[in-house]
Amino acid sequence: ASPPKRPRAGGGGRPRWFYTNTGRSDPSPEPTLTVRRQAGGVRNIILNNPRKRNALSLSMLQSLREDLLHDVKSKDLRVIIISAEGPVFCSGHDLKELSSEDDVKHHSQVFEICAEVMTLIQKLPVPVIAKVNGLATAAGCQLVASCDIAVASERSQFATPGVNIGLFCSTPAVALGRSLPRKVALEMLFTGEPLSAQEALMHGLVSKVVPEDKLEEETMKISHKICESSKSVLALGKATFYRQMTQDLDTAYRMTTQVMVDNLTLRDGQEGIEAFIQKRKPVWSHSQDEKK
Amino acid sequence: ASPPKRPRAGGGGRPRWFYTNTGRSDPSPEPTLTVRRQAGGVRNIILNNPRKRNALSLSMLQSLREDLLHDVKSKDLRVIIISAEGPVFCSGHDLKELSSEDDVKHHSQVFEICAEVMTLIQKLPVPVIAKVNGLATAAGCQLVASCDIAVASERSQFATPGVNIGLFCSTPAVALGRSLPRKVALEMLFTGEPLSAQEALMHGLVSKVVPEDKLEEETMKISHKICESSKSVLALGKATFYRQMTQDLDTAYRMTTQVMVDNLTLRDGQEGIEAFIQKRKPVWSHSQDEKK
Amino acid sequence: ASPPKRPRAGGGGRPRWFYTNTGRSDPSPEPTLTVRRQAGGVRNIILNNPRKRNALSLSMLQSLREDLLHDVKSKDLRVIIISAEGPVFCSGHDLKELSSEDDVKHHSQVFEICAEVMTLIQKLPVPVIAKVNGLATAAGCQLVASCDIAVASERSQFATPGVNIGLFCSTPAVALGRSLPRKVALEMLFTGEPLSAQEALMHGLVSKVVPEDKLEEETMKISHKICESSKSVLALGKATFYRQMTQDLDTAYRMTTQVMVDNLTLRDGQEGIEAFIQKRKPVWSHSQDEKK
Repeated sequence: ASPPKRPRAGGGGRPRWFYTNTGRSDPSPEPTLTVRRQAGGVRNIILNNPRKRNALSLSMLQSLREDLLHDVKSKDLRVIIISAEGPVFCSGHDLKELSSEDDVKHHSQVFEICAEVMTLIQKLPVPVIAKVNGLATAAGCQLVASCDIAVASERSQFATPGVNIGLFCSTPAVALGRSLPRKVALEMLFTGEPLSAQEALMHGLVSKVVPEDKLEEETMKISHKICESSKSVLALGKATFYRQMTQDLDTAYRMTTQVMVDNLTLRDGQEGIEAFIQKRKPVWSHSQDEKK
Repeated sequence: ASPPKRPRAGGGGRPRWFYTNTGRSDPSPEPTLTVRRQAGGVRNIILNNPRKRNALSLSMLQSLREDLLHDVKSKDLRVIIISAEGPVFCSGHDLKELSSEDDVKHHSQVFEICAEVMTLIQKLPVPVIAKVNGLATAAGCQLVASCDIAVASERSQFATPGVNIGLFCSTPAVALGRSLPRKVALEMLFTGEPLSAQEALMHGLVSKVVPEDKLEEETMKISHKICESSKSVLALGKATFYRQMTQDLDTAYRMTTQVMVDNLTLRDGQEGIEAFIQKRKPVWSHSQDEKK
Repeated sequence: ASPPKRPRAGGGGRPRWFYTNTGRSDPSPEPTLTVRRQAGGVRNIILNNPRKRNALSLSMLQSLREDLLHDVKSKDLRVIIISAEGPVFCSGHDLKELSSEDDVKHHSQVFEICAEVMTLIQKLPVPVIAKVNGLATAAGCQLVASCDIAVASERSQFATPGVNIGLFCSTPAVALGRSLPRKVALEMLFTGEPLSAQEALMHGLVSKVVPEDKLEEETMKISHKICESSKSVLALGKATFYRQMTQDLDTAYRMTTQVMVDNLTLRDGQEGIEAFIQKRKPVWSHSQDEKK
């Protein structure tokens, strides 16, 4: 891909970026593939290659991973929103990277970092919200399914059309199979036909659908609500949620019962309850320390 | 909590109770926390502390456990309905019991009996229906999610707002994660914002939503339908359902295939089929005996 | 059952059958219980005993199994549709085969072949679509739940009324519990009351609902879309989907990542991507061979 084809971040009438994804140690930096800006605890990661329909090329995935991991333990980071420039949220893998011109080793690398980014989202200590306005296909649909929360505009659509190009969406199917009823997931995977935003909501692939002009407002409403809570409490809760989901009921209750007790010993655990009883607003430390 | 604050059961113009939860061996009995009445095979358990928003205090949980377990093998008991007095179905734990004034051991006890009651519901030999008319939050939402069936009035709402007080709803998350699509559960857990009754229905947290003035009628319709069946057959089916849900498909089919054969050897199994073939109403023994 | 009661296949004004299920080696052939016809890659299997409400008798199950397995590896077979003659899609087991007149060994045989057919559907290398127009009950409802995709007319209904005859639908519960929210499944199992087509769609038991006069069109649209893809790619994808569903997330991604790499080495994997890049229609081999 030649440099002129790459859109530039920060150009035109866009709002200033708080951070841009430059100066990283990546040997071949493509600083404009994603844009990262952060303010008031909210990190926006914007897929920024609309001319290539925000394809998850190897470089895009590396950039996304760096944006997700950057200074993630900081108390200044409380929630991450993944959105996209242009009419397509994300079109999945860059097929040029999957042709026979590249060897198996290169193909493996693409799929491995993709799976790494998808599972990384669940391992982060902050909630990750997909803010979808447009078409999300294949690994792009997988990205939406892999986020903790997804808010979509009414015009958004979701599809896994790998069958059209002879490459079944087997990795996206991992995320879809855990987000959708089995029959809905299989009809998508076998036909490649899109789900509308309303269907995605009905079936649980996204948690909220709003008109396009309310997308920013709704996503920020959820983000601000999250920012009102203690980072350490949310981090404990998120990790616990995913852990208990793979356990049988008795094990899950044994584990989470202990987590509840531990949560109460956190500084923010006792602060929250004391504030409630004293009818005042809690003041969070966001610290993982226990209350003395 | 001082006695005058406790509402009295059986007062006012209420229908007479068939049983009230008095005379238990509890060292500090609070006889009015729940009310238990039973007629025609249907046991109603009513959370009866509306001034405290029916909080699941240690005493309330002990009372609820006793009401669930009381004479549960009797042929006179065929279905249990859990409902609540007042505008709030249940507000979850009593936060005063979770403050630093109480020690870790006390906190553990509260969460342990709570998990015990929630899992007990699935182990009972009769179906348990949540009849929800109002707000169900935190462990109250968990209680709804833990019942076998849930009928809600249109005005009902469901939330897990533990994050507001620095205590992530990690134990409720066990029940929510098994009742709702993952994204919907996580948005509830991360934001504390409520789900409407219609959203709860769409996403599977409740199985039926009706106007408030039809709630009693709909719940009794389901209950009476259940009472028309054999207790022993329902008990076998309920236990089998929860057991197979944790198994892989082949194991589940092997196990349930044997259960079907066993079911046919039950007195009520053969009675049902004979009655069908003879075009008459079956007469159930409700017995777990095999047909000779 | 006496011969005159059996409807004849191919009679009346029906379209000609491409295959009929005759000449099988079954010692007591009932050639008209199911009808199998195939054209353009699409195999239609029609439950063809409307006078007995298409009951899944032992013979019907054997016939269905043969229709599913017949020459299943042929490149001429790309998708299977299961539908039914008459107003009832399928009423479940033939209760006359479950009475005390037959012994336990016979009962076991019925349930075993039923479970075998239900799990067989997922193991076939082609997608299997249930095309439902009418009532599907008990093992008939299980059959719908066991297909990969289900399209239903608006008049269709789904129920598991085994409790009415003292035989809890424990084997159907295996399929329902994996297709529906737990509360919805349990309300169906405990009450025997039907789900409407729209409810079945909302809760994920079927993947599409259309007016009765659009049922054929919609099912064929999905089938034709499937026929446009490579058989070997779909077979790999279907097997992978069901395999990863039982794995934990990390294992699932490790396994599917390797499948994606393998998929690319298939002749049809490289053909698809090359055709896409060259902006031409792919020409599938449907072969499981790797590209040299």
